[in-house]
Amino acid sequence: MKSVEKLGTEAEGWLRELGQFGADAIRGGVTRLLYTEEWVNAQLWIAEEMKQEGLEVRTDEVGNVYGRLSGTTPELRAIVTGSHVDTVVCGGIYDGSYGIVAAIIALRELKQRYGQPRRTIEAVSLSEEEGSRFPLTCWGSGSITGKYLVEDAVHIRSESEGLTLSDAMRDAVGKLIAGAGISLEPALRHDVEAFIELHIEQGGVLEEEGVALGIVDRIVGQKRATITVLGESNHAGTTPMHMRRDALHASVAMIAALNELASEAGAPLTFTVGSLQVEPNLSNVIPGKVVFTIDMRHPSDEKLQVYYDRAAAITEREAGRFGVDARIELWMNEPSAGMNAGLRLLLEQSCIRSDASWKLMPSGAGHDAQLFAAHCKTAMLFVPSRGGISHSPFEYTPPAYLGTGIHGLIDLLYELAYTDVYEDEWG
Amino acid sequence: MKSVEKLGTEAEGWLRELGQFGADAIRGGVTRLLYTEEWVNAQLWIAEEMKQEGLEVRTDEVGNVYGRLSGTTPELRAIVTGSHVDTVVCGGIYDGSYGIVAAIIALRELKQRYGQPRRTIEAVSLSEEEGSRFPLTCWGSGSITGKYLVEDAVHIRSESEGLTLSDAMRDAVGKLIAGAGISLEPALRHDVEAFIELHIEQGGVLEEEGVALGIVDRIVGQKRATITVLGESNHAGTTPMHMRRDALHASVAMIAALNELASEAGAPLTFTVGSLQVEPNLSNVIPGKVVFTIDMRHPSDEKLQVYYDRAAAITEREAGRFGVDARIELWMNEPSAGMNAGLRLLLEQSCIRSDASWKLMPSGAGHDAQLFAAHCKTAMLFVPSRGGISHSPFEYTPPAYLGTGIHGLIDLLYELAYTDVYEDEWG
Repeated sequence: MKSVEKLGTEAEGWLRELGQFGADAIRGGVTRLLYTEEWVNAQLWIAEEMKQEGLEVRTDEVGNVYGRLSGTTPELRAIVTGSHVDTVVCGGIYDGSYGIVAAIIALRELKQRYGQPRRTIEAVSLSEEEGSRFPLTCWGSGSITGKYLVEDAVHIRSESEGLTLSDAMRDAVGKLIAGAGISLEPALRHDVEAFIELHIEQGGVLEEEGVALGIVDRIVGQKRATITVLGESNHAGTTPMHMRRDALHASVAMIAALNELASEAGAPLTFTVGSLQVEPNLSNVIPGKVVFTIDMRHPSDEKLQVYYDRAAAITEREAGRFGVDARIELWMNEPSAGMNAGLRLLLEQSCIRSDASWKLMPSGAGHDAQLFAAHCKTAMLFVPSRGGISHSPFEYTPPAYLGTGIHGLIDLLYELAYTDVYEDEWG
Repeated sequence: MKSVEKLGTEAEGWLRELGQFGADAIRGGVTRLLYTEEWVNAQLWIAEEMKQEGLEVRTDEVGNVYGRLSGTTPELRAIVTGSHVDTVVCGGIYDGSYGIVAAIIALRELKQRYGQPRRTIEAVSLSEEEGSRFPLTCWGSGSITGKYLVEDAVHIRSESEGLTLSDAMRDAVGKLIAGAGISLEPALRHDVEAFIELHIEQGGVLEEEGVALGIVDRIVGQKRATITVLGESNHAGTTPMHMRRDALHASVAMIAALNELASEAGAPLTFTVGSLQVEPNLSNVIPGKVVFTIDMRHPSDEKLQVYYDRAAAITEREAGRFGVDARIELWMNEPSAGMNAGLRLLLEQSCIRSDASWKLMPSGAGHDAQLFAAHCKTAMLFVPSRGGISHSPFEYTPPAYLGTGIHGLIDLLYELAYTDVYEDEWG
């Protein structure tokens, strides 16, 4: 087996190659939206790499591309590892792609060193996670795990482009099959024993603490809501302060109180007001309307609900205090997703064996693993992100960390697919 | 002389007629921007009304239209009364226009009742005050009083339309001279003894207190600044709260502290954050940049400076507390303008004589009177605005109040132009 350093350097080379599909010469970074030409070419490149490494390649109805290393015992359910191939607009070369590249390299290393596994192992390049082109996220993993039905695609439309997900998909998957000369299978699967996702952290915790690997215990629950505050627009000079119903004044008081709530709650709650719009937004006019979002995340769904209820109460209270109306609309309410405890322990043991520094941590971002967690045993492993930067051309993880991540992945896949440690202890 | 009620009803009729020039059938209200076709037609209509009332009509280089009632003693400087003819986009029919209509009606009433005055009296329809088309305000009054030079117009350009103020002016004033068959004079004047502006309040004080007339003692000083707060944009889920440099979180704390300052200072300070922009303004991204404006007004320039300095210090302090950078750019710094004490007393005496309810009050908005105040004796008189609404199709003042205002104007003009009360006591 290659050394950790060599694995990392190799992975970096692959990521740079894969990063050419959708590279944006003007703005920097990679723009590889679902079912675009760049996306098709990236999947074709991945299919070719999988073939080169001796894996059996196939795709499915939604364009997920699999590279399979068949097991000796076909009746055992498969171990699947990978991540998503799509990017945000002007994203980095690591997000998603790292998990795919790592999966292919891991399967090659396992095959070279240990030959055929007991269980089938599959590397997967999932078609979509980011939600950057169509108004949904995790289309790839959602179609495998039954959250979405392929037929739903006719109802999903890109507002900016007008076309349906269904039409874009038919075109792209057609090109994929023709280009790679591969077979097509249904997206929904019931033969997955475990899913493992290796991903960059997209946060700064591992880097700050100088830790090589993050073993995810839980993907946080998320609630996102929009708060609309209605006051009364008026002249900034001629309206005495006591006669105002200033929507921004009230909103600032609300947000200050909500920030206070978050501060009192402390970690692991995160609270963000990321978007705020003022009307009419003129320096000399008292704002009549403010619309802002709140984003609250916590690993415990119960605690998240408690904090959300408090936030709603604070909003109501401040609205009353300022004589404005406030309407709260909750539009995202994702429960948290626990990672499999057995897989987590195997990862911890692997870190101990290989002397890699690691920490248990929640994932503050959503991932494909979140959808698999409701469907099969799921594990997620993070490597550090420089400065916590993601969704940016400046995304970067040093090769040594890339290698440590791949090493951990290989170790876990070995335990699951070549030994019966897991089945004996937690299966 | 007509009764107050009849004067008000007549004024309302005129305002409705004048409000047809630039009436916006789709969005409602009046859009009569400087030197547009609607503006030219409005000034031609006013010139025609002035002629009908037997006034000598002329215009000047910047398109201010005058209707003169010559005095018996030409060496005495003139009394000028009026307001601006331009409107904001979708404005009301009262703002500015009321002062013009009132001036013409007042001159007619004086002439009918008392004949030729000692001093020349002039009604004026000022070309511009709102700053809605070109990036300057009070072009009409500023050109009369020497704040602006007519030659400056070549350097002033409408960003949205590309053309210069100079080109727009040449075209419009040419049409005005041709259409009305009137003479052109220089804009700058040194022969104005007093300027009197009758205007709707554009605030809700008079209505709230049930008072018919506001006698302005001072137009407030104004400072407007833009505050740019730079933090660091980052992922809302994966960035722990203690690692954030959230520009909106910091801005909210700043604005809350600034609101607190304003609240402690109390009336007559007004403080408004009217405009606020967030970048990148996405619900799941920590804001990296916030730009907001502050608008501070106070009748005392010294106190305004003290509060502004405190506001700047609070901004710096909060920036430091949140580890963000804050830059303050002061881009409007208008000193307050005191109205003439003698004229104010004449107005008070007039109210007492006619049993009209009145109150002394500052003007929180800027007006043409502000520019005249640095140039000659100046008085300003307010009538109530329903709900304090202005710059809106819903602007409204009941006819009875319009009449009371005109009556007050007539009374003051009589004292100034027909008697020597003012000269004897304060001249």
